[in-house]
Amino acid sequence: MHTYERRVNYYETDRMGVVHHSNYIRYFEEARTHFMEEAGYPYARMEEEGVMSPVTAIACQYKKPVHYPDLIYIRVYLVSMTKFRCAFRYEVADGKTGELRATGTSEHCYLDMSGHIVNIQRQNPVFFETFLKEADGE
Amino acid sequence: MHTYERRVNYYETDRMGVVHHSNYIRYFEEARTHFMEEAGYPYARMEEEGVMSPVTAIACQYKKPVHYPDLIYIRVYLVSMTKFRCAFRYEVADGKTGELRATGTSEHCYLDMSGHIVNIQRQNPVFFETFLKEADGE
Amino acid sequence: MHTYERRVNYYETDRMGVVHHSNYIRYFEEARTHFMEEAGYPYARMEEEGVMSPVTAIACQYKKPVHYPDLIYIRVYLVSMTKFRCAFRYEVADGKTGELRATGTSEHCYLDMSGHIVNIQRQNPVFFETFLKEADGE
Amino acid sequence: MHTYERRVNYYETDRMGVVHHSNYIRYFEEARTHFMEEAGYPYARMEEEGVMSPVTAIACQYKKPVHYPDLIYIRVYLVSMTKFRCAFRYEVADGKTGELRATGTSEHCYLDMSGHIVNIQRQNPVFFETFLKEADGE
Repeated sequence: MHTYERRVNYYETDRMGVVHHSNYIRYFEEARTHFMEEAGYPYARMEEEGVMSPVTAIACQYKKPVHYPDLIYIRVYLVSMTKFRCAFRYEVADGKTGELRATGTSEHCYLDMSGHIVNIQRQNPVFFETFLKEADGE
Repeated sequence: MHTYERRVNYYETDRMGVVHHSNYIRYFEEARTHFMEEAGYPYARMEEEGVMSPVTAIACQYKKPVHYPDLIYIRVYLVSMTKFRCAFRYEVADGKTGELRATGTSEHCYLDMSGHIVNIQRQNPVFFETFLKEADGE
Repeated sequence: MHTYERRVNYYETDRMGVVHHSNYIRYFEEARTHFMEEAGYPYARMEEEGVMSPVTAIACQYKKPVHYPDLIYIRVYLVSMTKFRCAFRYEVADGKTGELRATGTSEHCYLDMSGHIVNIQRQNPVFFETFLKEADGE
Repeated sequence: MHTYERRVNYYETDRMGVVHHSNYIRYFEEARTHFMEEAGYPYARMEEEGVMSPVTAIACQYKKPVHYPDLIYIRVYLVSMTKFRCAFRYEVADGKTGELRATGTSEHCYLDMSGHIVNIQRQNPVFFETFLKEADGE
């Protein structure tokens, strides 16, 4: 589990006065790449080495709105890590009260730069082992 | 069922060379509000009359990437309509080949302007009846 | 001169209840690429042929706000076209009343795919001639 | 002068492989609101007290591209502060080398919540004095 801290930006709000729901998907990405960096294998390094990891599925459940200029925490869990796929779980919480704001998940595959599916364990065993250790096997 | 047509914008792509996954959530919103307008009850009118309908859950499954400057079609289905909630389903397809690019769902509740849950059948029977007819009861 | 029509999206508003100012820059891009397509040389074709045209300067003056779900018109003028640079001017107007909402400009250079400056007249004379005719020489 | 640090997000890149030019306008806003918070008068407090400060003009000159996952610094200068308007200047620099990436400006007015122009010195002398001290009178 990893925690990422983030202040909400004015331009992320909508005329309902709250953070637009699409931005949570972007917060998930920020939290995920921060997690990878903390784990010692930044996502950018992965792409430099010839592997992309696009999102194959995303989901978010919105509990309570987030307002400008709230501070939020995003907890990231790597819930599964296999040679062809990985999956993350997210919890967005208020920075002051800790109250839950949203939960979500994302699923990812591995592709080479021409878009073909990659067995990440074979292609990049260091990457695979690094994140297998981080996976908390829920 | 309703179909919404959309050309992809350059600023919606990312460095993977494809439309960033977060933008599909925005396309769903565009398609949904277009659907409401076509059905005769624009979302903006609903807000003017004092009811907001925030997203309570979103999901998207990405099948194949969309590239700039692709034309895409988004088919919108109102899959459920109750006095407290409604739910939509979406299919994103390539504008030329009709090939499926992504599928998704969204769920919504009804709130008054101070954020309290609203029974839409009681609060706005015309709105409720308009969309009950559109719901295809999957 | 070319006119591009656009409905404003909910997700483009902010908590001030109006379209966030950063989105006008994106509207300019939409209008500009639409203009290029109408002129017979889509921007995507230019990139396929190995030339990018990044923005080197942008400016926007905001007169009156745009609200959801306003329809807007964006008039695009190609104000200069040389072998190393081009510049556009924009006017954003309300779709119903025609009242001016914003004005702006953008400047562009030409780069090959490794980021070196390109003489577009030499590199792509068809492109150059196509847009030289469109330039209204203000 | 105030410095704001920011890591670039993946979703802010475009298919040119660089940060899309429209995002610099959003970085300016982030840097500006961070500056106001550091100066002791957060923008959100201003809105809570009934005054909005919309952008009336924006400009940006792009020198060199910013890539994911670059760290950037944005230096903010409050260049003028009058009872009806204020203006900021921005410099975006690479976080590692300090090399300049972009420069820009923004202009703002003051409005009450019904959209009427406000004399900020009369309406909110504390706010006015706070930022008059910060203005570096270029």
